Order: sequence, then structure tokens, then C-alpha cells
Amino acid sequence: MNPALDEASRWERARAWIGQGVAVVDTPSLVIDLDAMDHNLARMAGFAHERGLRLRPHAKMHKSAELARLQVAHGAVGVCVQKTDEALALAHAGAHDILITNEVIAPQKLRRLAQAVRDLPTRFGLVVDSALGVARLADALTDAGVRGEHRMDVYIEIDVGHGRCGVPPGETAVVLAHSILANPVLHFAGLQAYHGAAQHRRNPAERAQAIGEAAWTAALARERLQASGFSVPLITGAGTGTFVLEASSRVWGELQAGSYLFMDADYALNEPAPQAPVFEHALFVKSQVMSRGALHAVCDAGHKSHAIDSGLPAVWFPGGLTYANGGDEHGLLRASGPGAALPELGETVWLVPGHCDPTVNLHDFMVGVRGGLAAGHVERIIAVDARGHGW
Amino acid sequence: MNPALDEASRWERARAWIGQGVAVVDTPSLVIDLDAMDHNLARMAGFAHERGLRLRPHAKMHKSAELARLQVAHGAVGVCVQKTDEALALAHAGAHDILITNEVIAPQKLRRLAQAVRDLPTRFGLVVDSALGVARLADALTDAGVRGEHRMDVYIEIDVGHGRCGVPPGETAVVLAHSILANPVLHFAGLQAYHGAAQHRRNPAERAQAIGEAAWTAALARERLQASGFSVPLITGAGTGTFVLEASSRVWGELQAGSYLFMDADYALNEPAPQAPVFEHALFVKSQVMSRGALHAVCDAGHKSHAIDSGLPAVWFPGGLTYANGGDEHGLLRASGPGAALPELGETVWLVPGHCDPTVNLHDFMVGVRGGLAAGHVERIIAVDARGHGW
Repeated sequence: MNPALDEASRWERARAWIGQGVAVVDTPSLVIDLDAMDHNLARMAGFAHERGLRLRPHAKMHKSAELARLQVAHGAVGVCVQKTDEALALAHAGAHDILITNEVIAPQKLRRLAQAVRDLPTRFGLVVDSALGVARLADALTDAGVRGEHRMDVYIEIDVGHGRCGVPPGETAVVLAHSILANPVLHFAGLQAYHGAAQHRRNPAERAQAIGEAAWTAALARERLQASGFSVPLITGAGTGTFVLEASSRVWGELQAGSYLFMDADYALNEPAPQAPVFEHALFVKSQVMSRGALHAVCDAGHKSHAIDSGLPAVWFPGGLTYANGGDEHGLLRASGPGAALPELGETVWLVPGHCDPTVNLHDFMVGVRGGLAAGHVERIIAVDARGHGW
Repeated sequence: MNPALDEASRWERARAWIGQGVAVVDTPSLVIDLDAMDHNLARMAGFAHERGLRLRPHAKMHKSAELARLQVAHGAVGVCVQKTDEALALAHAGAHDILITNEVIAPQKLRRLAQAVRDLPTRFGLVVDSALGVARLADALTDAGVRGEHRMDVYIEIDVGHGRCGVPPGETAVVLAHSILANPVLHFAGLQAYHGAAQHRRNPAERAQAIGEAAWTAALARERLQASGFSVPLITGAGTGTFVLEASSRVWGELQAGSYLFMDADYALNEPAPQAPVFEHALFVKSQVMSRGALHAVCDAGHKSHAIDSGLPAVWFPGGLTYANGGDEHGLLRASGPGAALPELGETVWLVPGHCDPTVNLHDFMVGVRGGLAAGHVERIIAVDARGHGW
């Protein structure tokens, strides 16, 4: 592939050009405020470093090899992903250490993964919660001809309160650990303990209670395994809503938070815990008014531009506006008070998406802006390499 | 581009191969039941033909040039789209008559559109609801050097009750018609009258009332324009929830319904009107169980696989299961009654998405299956050409 052509095609497809003023970036576009992102990157790297914890940010959020490299350059040990083909897309784009924080059962996915373990320099990890999962992973690695010891990190997922995947602490986990150690090509790397449901509890005391119980459950799982003679090298987990709690617990050794990099409107609704690092909104949808009524304006960003599973976007600028659902391709803007003015036809409206992960997954590119949203310029076009890679 | 390579790359990227049994299509994948789709295609074509109405299906739903061509082969006059770059993607892929059913204000979008009007054999139409929209369109066509009469169809959008875009019937519409006719390159093609909010009212009487009022408003707009000396060649509008009503009104001459082709779970919740054609579910997410608890199973399709703005997906097969939100990449399956069995690890679960339009927009390809979901085979891989083309 011709890299210059590739760059030109990337810009053409992103409808934005490097060096261009932010004012002329087409709408709706997904825009990163790079100054805010750098702040968030440094805050989280500093936090993990101070606490002596490993940071393995969740790349399911940005799906971008370029941002994964940036996180590793700031001290992350690698990244997490949620899906086999996310892992493969990022590995092919150069990510060197990837943990799939999810169970994989399908033989064809495990075959693709095993071939990547065999062929790429990337270190891969996978989470299991069933004997079938361990057996199929081992079979796939054997079938692919993977040789040598400890070629693949395997973590047992403990259900620490989320109620989705994972096994309870105790005998089931011990049986799984036995089956992992029976395969020399597998390395029993520890436990995954992630409480997704706790991330968005608004009250810090409720989050503290959930993570307190999760810590107790994870520690119990570790004790039971140690009592059966297993070494448990690491417990990995945590998200942007709770990582300060996991970090303080002395149970977790690795933090998986991802949304901190962009901070969405939903996370911003959490009442902050004392001493929590403060992150800035770094991900925006640039939109514009394309129809104007007497009492409302219509902007050109609906839920094909931003995900609404965790609520509608907040209007960042201009002030005094509320966003109501206008369907797939429209947003209805109304003045939130008698002093607020409706924007005019063609006027730019900046939105903060409700949930960054599925919002990024709607776009092929993120437009990185330096110097602020009002008068900055496009510094980089960042590809969403694993967009749509749900397999 | 090498078409053979392109085909191979398409299959590789879709994780499915033509001729493959449906059982081995990877998950989560977006699958079209081609037999059901053909039924829907024929039903709607037959309905429009019987009533002597033009059918211009909305391609915002499938975003696919291949399906647009199929609809035209079944008598559609062309297709609708919602966005400038959807129109351009479909035009470059060969669609011959495209109406953008939405206002476009941004000069750079209008510049791209004008260049396509100049360079491509496609006939384009656009909807307006402001003097600025008409002026900028005319400027863009002039700047692009578009020559000749009636090169671009322009429709005035009337707000017939949806409360989003459009002008009221009366003086504003007359002024807009004057400004359109002042530009010989523009062709005043008629009115757009679409009541989006009426589509999903469950009760047929409520839908009938809304469309009755919409018909009155659209007819009034036409009368006022005719009284001012304008000919109004066409009123275009209607959706899958209400098109029987628009068809019976004798006000509309063209139907824009799109979802009929796939029928989603949300439209299926509408109580049908008497004599309405019956459409079958043709769009599915193929998913599989990747974790299994005592009281629930977890499938590998969450809201990065299907949109949930109009509700969660329904479980099509196996029976007796309910789907609860498990986040971006998971669905929680529970037995809906004491007799229902939870599916086992690796078992396939077929979902009917809540809303087809934004679900299709999450995928690059749709896997077309012939011979049923249980034992059919992959007949075609259909590209979602305009996926993510929100500009």
C-alpha cells in the first residue's frame, strides 16, 4: 500500500484535513480535544505510577492502535479489548500486549486468535469462565502448531457482583485453574474481577460498597486458589467510575479503566469520590444547525452520530441549550431558560456524547484538534481501526 | 480496483463466505433472510402498483446500493436518503435517482452535491425549509458550473405534525417556491410531508388521526401554492407504520417507506391497520452463547451489534427466552417461563433488532441467507456502502 495515498484517502474519508481550522471540519464529526486528552492521559498515568499499579487501559473504548501506542508510551503495560477481532485489528496495527477481557467459545474465533499467537510478536491474554473455554483454547493453539511454554496468558473471571460472566470464588475456579495448568502452552496469569454495574452508580458511597464487596469476593477467590496450591500472579479489573477504590483496596494489581481518556457525559454525572483525579471531556461531536423553527433549532447529529444507550448527549457549546432526541440523524435543541438564545442556521453546536465507547464505534475516524474547540486546528486524524470488529 | 480481490476482501472482512452454511457464519453477524426480504419486496411493490403510487423507498435504512438496485428492479422510481454523503456513496455505486429527504445548509456539503450533479448521471433531489437553504444550493450549483434547466429537484418540506424540520403551510412555503423558481437550474418538484412521530404509535386509530391531520396540512399547503400560481407536481412522504393511510388519502403521490424491507421488532409492536400488507422479519443478528450461569446465559451481541434506541432486540430462536441489556457486547438471556430451557455454551441465538436503520449502520456487511435461518446457506454478502456516511 502506498502510505501517502493511504494518508490522503484517510483525510478524504474523514472529511477533515490536517492543518485545517476546526471551524471548517464537516459535521457531524467526532472530534478529540487533544489538549484535554493529554491532560487525562497524564493524570491517569501519574495516578497508576504513584500507586505502583499496572495500567492496562481498555481499548474497546477507542478501538485505535494509535491511541493504544500513546497509552503505552505513557506507561501502560498494554491494553484490554473485548472481542477477538478487536485484538487482531490492534495487533496487526502494532499493539504489543493485548488482554481480551471476555470469554471466547467459538472455535473459528479461537482459531484466528491461535494463528495470531503463532504468527505475531504480540502477547495475548484471554479470560475464561468455563472448562469448555479452556479446552477449546488449548485445542486451537495445538491445532495452530503453537509451541513453547506460557505462550498465552489466561485469566479466570470471577463474578464480583456484576452478574454477567464469571464464576463464583471457590471450587469452580480451582477446577478451571487445574485445567489451565494442565496445558503448558497456557499461562495461568491470575483473575479478572470487574464490576461493570458499579461504574455508573452516582453516589460515591454506593460505589464504595459495591467495590468493597467485589474486593472481598476477589480476595476470597485468590485465597481459595492459593490454599489449593496455585500462585495467583495478578488480579486485574476496575473502570473509570471506581478505579480509585480498586487501587486503594490492595487486592487489584492492574487497572483496566478506559473511558478516562475521553470522559463522557454519563461518567460526568457520577458524584466524584474524594481525592479522585479529575478528567476533562475530550470527545465531542461537532454538529451544526440545519433547520430552525420558532421555538427550536435542529442540528445534524442524531443517534447515528452518537450512542444514546447511556443517555442523550449534553450540549457543550453554545450554552443554555438542551438536546432532545430527534431520531437517527437529528437533534432538537431548545433554549433551557428565558435568557438563552437559539443558534442560527449553520451555527456550530458541540455535543458531549452520553457514552464514549459505542459512540466511537459509529465512526471510522476521530479528528484530533489542538488549541481548543473554538479556534484550534486539526493536528491528527486518528483511525478507529477496530470499528465494527464485533466478532 | 481488482474486482476479484475486492470480492475476496469483502468476504474476508464480513467473516462469511458465499455458499457457506448459515450454521458456521461467525457471530455476531447481521443476517438477512433473503426469502423473507423477497416477500417484503414483492408485497410493497404490489401495493404501490395496485394503488398507482410511486414508491421511493428510504435507503437510509439499508445504505446499500445493491438493495437500492433491487428495489428499483421491483418498480421503485429511485430511493431516498437522509444525508448528502449517503447520496454520494449510493450514486457512486450506481443508484440513478436519489432524493435527500433532509435539509442541507453547509456550503461544503452543497459543493460536493453540486459536483455530483455536474459529474454523475444520477438525478438528485433535495428538501428545503429555508431561504438560506435555497440560496446556498443555487450558489453551489452555479459555482460548480452546472448548466441547463431543471437539473436538480427541490421539494419544500411542510411540517405536518412531526415538529422537527419543515415550514407551516402558507406564506413561508409560497416565498420559498418563488425563490426556487427564480433559479432555472432548480426544479420545484413538490412538497415533502412526512410525519415521523406517527410511525410508531401503536394504535391504528391514533396513527389514522395523525395522518388525517397531516393530509389536511399537506393539502392546505398545496392549495395555497396553487392559489399563488404554482404547480405542485407531487407530495412525497410516508413510512412503514402509516403508508396505507397516506396511500388512501389521495394527497400523497409517492411513498418513502423503508423499514418494510427488513421489519424490525419495534414496527412489529404496532397493532396492524385493517388491510395492511403483512411484512416478515428479514433482518437478524446471529449471536451465540459465550458464558453460562445457573439462571442466565450470556450471548455475544450487545448494543455495538444492534441499536437499542427503539428497544432491546427480541429473541427469535430458541423460544422462551427474554433478552436483557448486557452492555456494549453482551446480552443477558433468561428463561421467560418455567418450561423454557436456557441455551448452552456455543449455542446459536437469533435476535430481531429493535430498530433496523441504526442497527445496519453498525455493520459493514449484511450476510444474505437463502433457505431459512436453520439450515440455509449464504447466497450474497451485501455491502453497507454508506455506513457511517453521516455528513
